[in-house]
Amino acid sequence: MARGKFITLEGGEGAGKSTQARRLAARLETQGIKTVVTREPGGAPGAEVIRELLVKGETGRWAPRTEALLHFAAREEHLARTIRPAIARGDWVISDRFVDSTMAYQGVGQGLGAAFIDNLREIVVGSDMPALTLILDLPPETGLARAAGRATAGEDRYERMDLEFHQTLRQAFLDIAKNEPMRCFVVDAARSEEAVAADIWEIVKARLLP
Amino acid sequence: MARGKFITLEGGEGAGKSTQARRLAARLETQGIKTVVTREPGGAPGAEVIRELLVKGETGRWAPRTEALLHFAAREEHLARTIRPAIARGDWVISDRFVDSTMAYQGVGQGLGAAFIDNLREIVVGSDMPALTLILDLPPETGLARAAGRATAGEDRYERMDLEFHQTLRQAFLDIAKNEPMRCFVVDAARSEEAVAADIWEIVKARLLP
Repeated sequence: MARGKFITLEGGEGAGKSTQARRLAARLETQGIKTVVTREPGGAPGAEVIRELLVKGETGRWAPRTEALLHFAAREEHLARTIRPAIARGDWVISDRFVDSTMAYQGVGQGLGAAFIDNLREIVVGSDMPALTLILDLPPETGLARAAGRATAGEDRYERMDLEFHQTLRQAFLDIAKNEPMRCFVVDAARSEEAVAADIWEIVKARLLP
Repeated sequence: MARGKFITLEGGEGAGKSTQARRLAARLETQGIKTVVTREPGGAPGAEVIRELLVKGETGRWAPRTEALLHFAAREEHLARTIRPAIARGDWVISDRFVDSTMAYQGVGQGLGAAFIDNLREIVVGSDMPALTLILDLPPETGLARAAGRATAGEDRYERMDLEFHQTLRQAFLDIAKNEPMRCFVVDAARSEEAVAADIWEIVKARLLP
């Protein structure tokens, strides 16, 4: 049986990642491809418990390296319990955030440096990297305004970090795309949901469908 | 100002590590040495939150690599918030468990292998290794019987793992001691509390006091 494919959506707060993940899954299902839509931090029962420690509470509650390690602990649980089994049984997996978020938020935004994150990526993710990563790019002011309209109780620890932090994140994601052009595609996410979805579908078709 | 020294106590369940940590601290205080007694997993507010995820619940609740990463996340928080600041201000730190426990429990007992743990140790602990590690050795049957008499509500996830697991742990700690003879000293912990404390004091005096 053919293995499934692993796609990630990345970008700042309010870029529309979860909406586009659901739209892409629906589109793939019309092609007869079974998909699993998941997210980070989280995506498995234990990983969702770790998520609570990361998305709630004071912005400075963790030492920065602790925070990166918690993201990788949640990621390992997500890989072990959700992603690897789905790919092995032939499903496609679409994840709202993955390791590039840890590079952008902790490696660049919180200043840990690329080497610390790259070392953990090598140990934890290894060869389980996504086949395709869509980076949804938009001005952080726009994204934060959108995100403020959402209502997941108390899950705003990263949104509460200052605008400069979110501007740094935007550049970090663009730099990742530049460094890994075979895997990463930047999509202008300041446009309508439909326009963004259409772009994403063209990229997925061109890169991953026969 | 002179930096403090870092001592760890290691060994299986019920070996008397926390008791001996307190006794050693009291003895050092009589020499005018300020000490911080701490423990893993835990030893800092955030690390104690992570501890809850590790010492409670079903024995199989985490994928083994997740579990090791959670231990290292808690360890980083412990190092950042408690151990490094204490050592920097000249206090001595005595920790009930540290990285050797992750090697024994997750690396050997849960079968992750030495390389995975060694890589994380290099990234997270780096040069912040203890100057001295006392490995309290005793038959696991004796230790588990002692541990069963304790009463920290629900904190028995590791104790509930089977006897074969605990026998593997004992050998793993002895192997660590053999591999790092400059740092690690094995103490026969099947004897009286006083006899063990006397041995520990002799080792600490010989290795760390002027």
